[in-house]
Amino acid sequence: MATHDLQQTVSLLARTPATLDALLRDLPDGWTRQGEGPDTWTVVDIVGHLIHGERTDWMVRVKGLMQFGPSHTFEPFDRAGHSRGIEGLSLAQLLDEFAQLRAENLRELHQLNLQPDDMNRQARHPAFGPVTLSELLATWAAHDLTHLHQIARVMAHQYRDAVGPWQKYLGVLHCDGHSA
Amino acid sequence: MATHDLQQTVSLLARTPATLDALLRDLPDGWTRQGEGPDTWTVVDIVGHLIHGERTDWMVRVKGLMQFGPSHTFEPFDRAGHSRGIEGLSLAQLLDEFAQLRAENLRELHQLNLQPDDMNRQARHPAFGPVTLSELLATWAAHDLTHLHQIARVMAHQYRDAVGPWQKYLGVLHCDGHSA
Repeated sequence: MATHDLQQTVSLLARTPATLDALLRDLPDGWTRQGEGPDTWTVVDIVGHLIHGERTDWMVRVKGLMQFGPSHTFEPFDRAGHSRGIEGLSLAQLLDEFAQLRAENLRELHQLNLQPDDMNRQARHPAFGPVTLSELLATWAAHDLTHLHQIARVMAHQYRDAVGPWQKYLGVLHCDGHSA
Repeated sequence: MATHDLQQTVSLLARTPATLDALLRDLPDGWTRQGEGPDTWTVVDIVGHLIHGERTDWMVRVKGLMQFGPSHTFEPFDRAGHSRGIEGLSLAQLLDEFAQLRAENLRELHQLNLQPDDMNRQARHPAFGPVTLSELLATWAAHDLTHLHQIARVMAHQYRDAVGPWQKYLGVLHCDGHSA
Protein backbone atom coordinates (compact mmCIF):
# COMPACT_ATOMS: atom_id res chain seq x y z
CA MET A 1 0.00 0.00 0.00
CA ALA A 2 2.68 2.46 -1.01
CA THR A 3 0.05 4.53 -2.78
CA HIS A 4 -3.29 5.86 -1.72
CA ASP A 5 -6.34 3.64 -2.17
CA LEU A 6 -9.74 5.29 -1.86
CA GLN A 7 -11.52 2.18 -0.62
CA GLN A 8 -8.89 1.61 2.05
CA THR A 9 -9.16 5.23 3.12
CA VAL A 10 -12.93 5.05 3.39
CA SER A 11 -12.78 1.73 5.26
CA LEU A 12 -10.68 3.40 7.94
CA LEU A 13 -12.62 6.68 8.06
CA ALA A 14 -15.85 4.76 8.49
CA ARG A 15 -14.52 2.84 11.50
CA THR A 16 -13.11 5.67 13.59
CA PRO A 17 -16.37 6.76 15.28
CA ALA A 18 -17.14 3.22 16.45
CA THR A 19 -13.54 2.76 17.57
CA LEU A 20 -13.63 5.88 19.72
CA ASP A 21 -17.07 4.93 21.01
CA ALA A 22 -15.90 1.48 22.10
CA LEU A 23 -12.83 2.93 23.78
CA LEU A 24 -14.26 6.04 25.39
CA ARG A 25 -18.01 6.03 26.03
CA ASP A 26 -18.75 5.91 29.77
CA LEU A 27 -15.07 5.66 30.62
CA PRO A 28 -14.32 7.30 33.99
CA ASP A 29 -13.35 10.98 33.73
CA GLY A 30 -9.92 10.17 35.14
CA TRP A 31 -9.02 8.75 31.73
CA THR A 32 -10.68 11.37 29.56
CA ARG A 33 -10.64 14.77 31.26
CA GLN A 34 -6.98 15.06 32.16
CA GLY A 35 -4.18 15.92 29.76
CA GLU A 36 -0.44 15.53 29.95
CA GLY A 37 0.15 18.69 31.96
CA PRO A 38 -0.87 22.36 31.82
CA ASP A 39 -2.18 23.52 28.44
CA THR A 40 -2.21 20.07 26.90
CA TRP A 41 -5.16 18.37 25.29
CA THR A 42 -7.42 15.95 27.10
CA VAL A 43 -9.22 13.12 25.33
CA VAL A 44 -12.32 15.34 25.29
CA ASP A 45 -10.33 18.07 23.51
CA ILE A 46 -9.11 15.58 20.92
CA VAL A 47 -12.63 14.39 20.12
CA GLY A 48 -13.64 18.06 19.87
CA HIS A 49 -10.78 18.64 17.42
CA LEU A 50 -11.94 15.70 15.29
CA ILE A 51 -15.45 17.18 15.22
CA HIS A 52 -14.07 20.57 14.19
CA GLY A 53 -12.20 18.89 11.31
CA GLU A 54 -15.40 17.23 10.10
CA ARG A 55 -17.21 20.56 10.20
CA THR A 56 -14.65 22.89 8.70
CA ASP A 57 -11.80 21.05 7.08
CA TRP A 58 -11.83 17.72 5.26
CA MET A 59 -14.92 17.66 3.07
CA VAL A 60 -14.86 21.44 2.70
CA ARG A 61 -11.41 21.06 1.16
CA VAL A 62 -12.39 18.07 -0.99
CA LYS A 63 -15.34 19.98 -2.41
CA GLY A 64 -13.31 23.16 -2.91
CA LEU A 65 -10.66 21.22 -4.81
CA MET A 66 -13.22 19.48 -7.03
CA GLN A 67 -15.16 22.66 -7.69
CA PHE A 68 -12.44 25.25 -8.21
CA GLY A 69 -9.32 23.30 -9.18
CA PRO A 70 -5.62 24.13 -8.95
CA SER A 71 -5.94 27.87 -8.36
CA HIS A 72 -8.10 27.29 -5.25
CA THR A 73 -6.34 27.80 -1.91
CA PHE A 74 -7.71 26.01 1.14
CA GLU A 75 -8.74 28.05 4.17
CA PRO A 76 -6.23 27.50 7.00
CA PHE A 77 -7.50 24.97 9.54
CA ASP A 78 -7.81 26.38 13.04
CA ARG A 79 -6.23 23.66 15.14
CA ALA A 80 -7.53 25.23 18.34
CA GLY A 81 -10.94 25.97 16.84
CA HIS A 82 -12.71 23.22 18.73
CA SER A 83 -12.58 24.85 22.15
CA ARG A 84 -15.81 26.82 21.86
CA GLY A 85 -17.69 23.89 20.34
CA ILE A 86 -17.15 21.49 23.22
CA GLU A 87 -18.02 23.64 26.23
CA GLY A 88 -20.65 22.07 28.43
CA LEU A 89 -20.98 18.94 26.31
CA SER A 90 -20.47 15.46 27.69
CA LEU A 91 -18.04 13.10 26.01
CA ALA A 92 -21.04 10.95 25.02
CA GLN A 93 -22.58 13.93 23.23
CA LEU A 94 -19.29 14.65 21.47
CA LEU A 95 -18.98 11.04 20.34
CA ASP A 96 -22.51 11.18 18.94
CA GLU A 97 -21.74 14.44 17.15
CA PHE A 98 -18.54 13.07 15.65
CA ALA A 99 -20.28 9.90 14.43
CA GLN A 100 -23.07 11.89 12.81
CA LEU A 101 -20.75 14.36 11.07
CA ARG A 102 -18.42 11.63 9.84
CA ALA A 103 -21.34 9.65 8.42
CA GLU A 104 -22.66 12.75 6.62
CA ASN A 105 -19.23 13.52 5.22
CA LEU A 106 -18.74 9.98 3.95
CA ARG A 107 -22.15 10.16 2.27
CA GLU A 108 -21.08 13.36 0.54
CA LEU A 109 -17.78 11.80 -0.46
CA HIS A 110 -19.59 8.81 -1.92
CA GLN A 111 -21.94 11.08 -3.87
CA LEU A 112 -18.95 12.74 -5.55
CA ASN A 113 -18.39 9.38 -7.27
CA LEU A 114 -14.66 10.04 -7.49
CA GLN A 115 -12.78 8.26 -10.27
CA PRO A 116 -9.09 7.27 -10.38
CA ASP A 117 -8.29 10.23 -12.63
CA ASP A 118 -9.69 12.62 -10.03
CA MET A 119 -7.02 11.59 -7.56
CA ASN A 120 -4.39 13.73 -9.28
CA ARG A 121 -6.52 16.87 -9.26
CA GLN A 122 -4.92 19.68 -7.30
CA ALA A 123 -5.57 22.67 -5.10
CA ARG A 124 -3.25 24.81 -2.97
CA HIS A 125 -2.53 24.31 0.70
CA PRO A 126 -2.05 27.68 2.44
CA ALA A 127 1.32 26.63 3.87
CA PHE A 128 2.91 24.30 1.36
CA GLY A 129 1.32 24.91 -2.02
CA PRO A 130 0.04 22.33 -4.50
CA VAL A 131 -1.45 19.15 -3.09
CA THR A 132 -3.50 16.43 -4.76
CA LEU A 133 -6.90 15.04 -3.89
CA SER A 134 -5.18 11.74 -3.23
CA GLU A 135 -2.88 13.35 -0.66
CA LEU A 136 -5.79 15.15 0.98
CA LEU A 137 -7.84 11.97 1.36
CA ALA A 138 -4.86 9.95 2.64
CA THR A 139 -4.22 12.70 5.17
CA TRP A 140 -7.81 12.60 6.41
CA ALA A 141 -7.29 8.91 7.30
CA ALA A 142 -3.81 9.40 8.73
CA HIS A 143 -5.14 12.31 10.81
CA ASP A 144 -7.59 9.91 12.48
CA LEU A 145 -4.64 7.66 13.30
CA THR A 146 -2.48 10.49 14.62
CA HIS A 147 -5.23 11.33 17.08
CA LEU A 148 -5.91 7.72 18.04
CA HIS A 149 -2.18 7.52 18.73
CA GLN A 150 -2.44 10.70 20.80
CA ILE A 151 -5.49 9.47 22.74
CA ALA A 152 -3.62 6.29 23.71
CA ARG A 153 -0.68 8.42 24.85
CA VAL A 154 -2.77 10.90 26.87
CA MET A 155 -4.60 8.05 28.60
CA ALA A 156 -1.40 6.13 29.35
CA HIS A 157 0.07 9.30 30.86
CA GLN A 158 -2.53 9.06 33.64
CA TYR A 159 -0.83 5.82 34.80
CA ARG A 160 2.74 7.05 34.31
CA ASP A 161 3.50 6.81 38.03
CA ALA A 162 1.10 3.98 38.81
CA VAL A 163 3.03 1.45 36.69
CA GLY A 164 6.15 1.84 38.84
CA PRO A 165 9.29 0.20 37.41
CA TRP A 166 7.43 -1.02 34.31
CA GLN A 167 7.55 2.56 33.04
CA LYS A 168 10.70 1.84 31.07
CA TYR A 169 9.10 -1.07 29.18
CA LEU A 170 6.00 0.82 28.07
CA GLY A 171 6.76 2.53 24.79
CA VAL A 172 3.77 4.82 24.93
CA LEU A 173 5.27 6.49 28.01
CA HIS A 174 8.37 7.37 25.99
CA CYS A 175 6.50 9.05 23.16
CA ASP A 176 7.56 12.67 23.03
CA GLY A 177 4.20 14.17 22.21
CA HIS A 178 4.75 14.88 18.55
CA SER A 179 1.00 14.85 18.01
CA ALA A 180 0.15 17.36 20.72
CA MET B 1 -5.49 9.92 38.82
CA ALA B 2 -1.92 9.98 40.10
CA THR B 3 -2.46 6.61 41.75
CA HIS B 4 -3.84 3.35 40.54
CA ASP B 5 -7.59 2.78 40.72
CA LEU B 6 -8.83 -0.78 40.24
CA GLN B 7 -12.19 0.23 38.81
CA GLN B 8 -10.57 2.54 36.29
CA THR B 9 -8.14 -0.19 35.30
CA VAL B 10 -10.93 -2.71 34.80
CA SER B 11 -13.02 -0.18 32.85
CA LEU B 12 -10.20 0.17 30.36
CA LEU B 13 -9.26 -3.52 30.20
CA ALA B 14 -12.89 -4.41 29.52
CA ARG B 15 -13.08 -2.02 26.55
CA THR B 16 -9.97 -3.00 24.62
CA PRO B 17 -11.41 -6.02 22.78
CA ALA B 18 -14.37 -4.01 21.45
CA THR B 19 -12.05 -1.11 20.55
CA LEU B 20 -9.80 -3.36 18.49
CA ASP B 21 -12.83 -5.05 16.96
CA ALA B 22 -14.34 -1.74 15.85
CA LEU B 23 -11.03 -0.58 14.40
CA LEU B 24 -9.76 -3.76 12.79
CA ARG B 25 -12.40 -6.36 11.91
CA ASP B 26 -12.76 -6.71 8.13
CA LEU B 27 -10.27 -3.91 7.53
CA PRO B 28 -8.38 -4.47 4.25
CA ASP B 29 -5.13 -6.43 4.66
CA GLY B 30 -3.18 -3.41 3.45
CA TRP B 31 -3.75 -1.85 6.86
CA THR B 32 -3.22 -4.94 9.00
CA ARG B 33 -0.70 -7.30 7.39
CA GLN B 34 2.15 -4.89 6.73
CA GLY B 35 4.59 -3.62 9.33
CA GLU B 36 6.98 -0.70 9.37
CA GLY B 37 9.75 -2.48 7.45
CA PRO B 38 11.57 -5.83 7.65
CA ASP B 39 11.25 -7.67 10.96
CA THR B 40 8.72 -5.27 12.41
CA TRP B 41 5.32 -6.18 13.79
CA THR B 42 2.14 -5.98 11.78
CA VAL B 43 -1.24 -5.27 13.36
CA VAL B 44 -1.88 -9.02 13.26
CA ASP B 45 1.33 -9.63 15.23
CA ILE B 46 0.28 -7.06 17.83
CA VAL B 47 -3.10 -8.71 18.37
CA GLY B 48 -1.27 -12.04 18.65
CA HIS B 49 1.01 -10.51 21.29
CA LEU B 50 -1.99 -9.28 23.27
CA ILE B 51 -3.47 -12.80 23.13
CA HIS B 52 -0.18 -14.26 24.35
CA GLY B 53 -0.21 -11.85 27.29
CA GLU B 54 -3.71 -12.93 28.26
CA ARG B 55 -2.66 -16.58 28.14
CA THR B 56 0.71 -16.49 29.84
CA ASP B 57 1.32 -13.20 31.59
CA TRP B 58 -1.14 -10.91 33.31
CA MET B 59 -3.52 -13.08 35.31
CA VAL B 60 -0.86 -15.75 35.76
CA ARG B 61 1.23 -13.11 37.52
CA VAL B 62 -1.70 -11.73 39.53
CA LYS B 63 -2.55 -15.18 40.81
CA GLY B 64 1.10 -16.04 41.51
CA LEU B 65 1.50 -12.85 43.52
CA MET B 66 -1.67 -13.46 45.53
CA GLN B 67 -0.88 -17.11 46.15
CA PHE B 68 2.86 -17.06 46.89
CA GLY B 69 3.64 -13.52 48.00
CA PRO B 70 6.86 -11.51 48.05
CA SER B 71 9.29 -14.39 47.51
CA HIS B 72 7.56 -15.39 44.26
CA THR B 73 9.37 -14.44 41.05
CA PHE B 74 7.32 -14.04 37.88
CA GLU B 75 8.21 -16.13 34.85
CA PRO B 76 9.78 -13.90 32.18
CA PHE B 77 7.26 -12.91 29.50
CA ASP B 78 8.28 -14.06 26.02
CA ARG B 79 7.63 -10.96 23.96
CA ALA B 80 8.00 -12.92 20.72
CA GLY B 81 5.99 -15.86 22.04
CA HIS B 82 2.95 -15.10 19.98
CA SER B 83 4.38 -16.08 16.61
CA ARG B 84 3.43 -19.76 16.76
CA GLY B 85 -0.04 -19.03 18.08
CA ILE B 86 -1.15 -16.86 15.18
CA GLU B 87 -0.07 -18.92 12.17
CA GLY B 88 -2.90 -19.60 9.78
CA LEU B 89 -5.44 -17.65 11.78
CA SER B 90 -7.44 -14.76 10.36
CA LEU B 91 -7.47 -11.43 12.11
CA ALA B 92 -11.16 -12.02 12.86
CA GLN B 93 -10.29 -15.27 14.63
CA LEU B 94 -7.56 -13.53 16.61
CA LEU B 95 -9.95 -10.76 17.67
CA ASP B 96 -12.45 -13.39 18.84
CA GLU B 97 -9.73 -15.21 20.75
CA PHE B 98 -8.52 -12.02 22.42
CA ALA B 99 -12.04 -11.02 23.45
CA GLN B 100 -12.74 -14.44 24.94
CA LEU B 101 -9.46 -14.62 26.88
CA ARG B 102 -9.81 -11.07 28.18
CA ALA B 103 -13.36 -11.74 29.37
CA GLU B 104 -12.24 -14.92 31.16
CA ASN B 105 -9.34 -13.11 32.79
CA LEU B 106 -11.56 -10.27 33.99
CA ARG B 107 -13.96 -12.83 35.45
CA GLU B 108 -11.06 -14.41 37.34
CA LEU B 109 -9.88 -11.01 38.51
CA HIS B 110 -13.36 -10.20 39.77
CA GLN B 111 -13.54 -13.50 41.63
CA LEU B 112 -10.36 -12.65 43.53
CA ASN B 113 -12.43 -9.90 45.19
CA LEU B 114 -9.34 -7.76 45.68
CA GLN B 115 -9.39 -5.26 48.52
CA PRO B 116 -7.50 -1.97 48.85
CA ASP B 117 -4.98 -3.60 51.20
CA ASP B 118 -4.15 -6.20 48.59
CA MET B 119 -2.83 -3.52 46.27
CA ASN B 120 0.43 -3.26 48.20
CA ARG B 121 1.13 -6.99 48.12
CA GLN B 122 4.34 -7.82 46.34
CA ALA B 123 6.12 -10.34 44.16
CA ARG B 124 9.38 -10.17 42.24
CA HIS B 125 9.77 -9.20 38.61
CA PRO B 126 12.60 -11.23 36.98
CA ALA B 127 14.33 -8.08 35.74
CA PHE B 128 13.67 -5.37 38.30
CA GLY B 129 12.78 -7.02 41.58
CA PRO B 130 9.90 -6.14 43.91
CA VAL B 131 6.70 -4.90 42.34
CA THR B 132 3.25 -4.43 43.81
CA LEU B 133 -0.10 -5.79 42.69
CA SER B 134 -1.15 -2.21 42.06
CA GLU B 135 1.77 -1.68 39.68
CA LEU B 136 1.07 -4.96 37.90
CA LEU B 137 -2.59 -4.11 37.32
CA ALA B 138 -1.82 -0.55 36.18
CA THR B 139 0.73 -1.99 33.75
CA TRP B 140 -1.82 -4.41 32.29
CA ALA B 141 -3.98 -1.39 31.35
CA ALA B 142 -1.07 0.75 30.15
CA HIS B 143 0.16 -2.21 28.08
CA ASP B 144 -3.16 -2.18 26.19
CA LEU B 145 -2.59 1.51 25.51
CA THR B 146 1.02 1.05 24.41
CA HIS B 147 -0.19 -1.40 21.78
CA LEU B 148 -3.13 0.72 20.70
CA HIS B 149 -0.58 3.50 20.23
CA GLN B 150 1.60 1.10 18.24
CA ILE B 151 -1.31 -0.11 16.08
CA ALA B 152 -2.15 3.48 15.14
CA ARG B 153 1.50 4.06 14.26
CA VAL B 154 1.89 0.89 12.18
CA MET B 155 -1.29 1.67 10.26
CA ALA B 156 -0.31 5.30 9.66
CA HIS B 157 3.04 4.11 8.33
CA GLN B 158 1.20 2.53 5.38
CA TYR B 159 0.23 6.06 4.26
CA ARG B 160 3.60 7.68 5.00
CA ASP B 161 4.20 8.47 1.32
CA ALA B 162 0.56 8.82 0.31
CA VAL B 163 0.03 11.93 2.47
CA GLY B 164 2.65 13.90 0.53
CA PRO B 165 3.63 17.22 2.12
CA TRP B 166 1.25 16.70 5.07
CA GLN B 167 3.78 14.20 6.44
CA LYS B 168 5.39 16.89 8.57
CA TYR B 169 2.08 17.79 10.27
CA LEU B 170 1.13 14.25 11.25
CA GLY B 171 2.66 13.48 14.62
CA VAL B 172 2.14 9.74 14.36
CA LEU B 173 4.58 9.69 11.44
CA HIS B 174 7.26 11.19 13.66
CA CYS B 175 6.93 8.60 16.40
CA ASP B 176 10.22 6.78 16.70
CA GLY B 177 8.83 3.31 17.32
CA HIS B 178 9.48 3.12 21.05
CA SER B 179 6.76 0.50 21.35
CA ALA B 180 8.09 -1.84 18.66
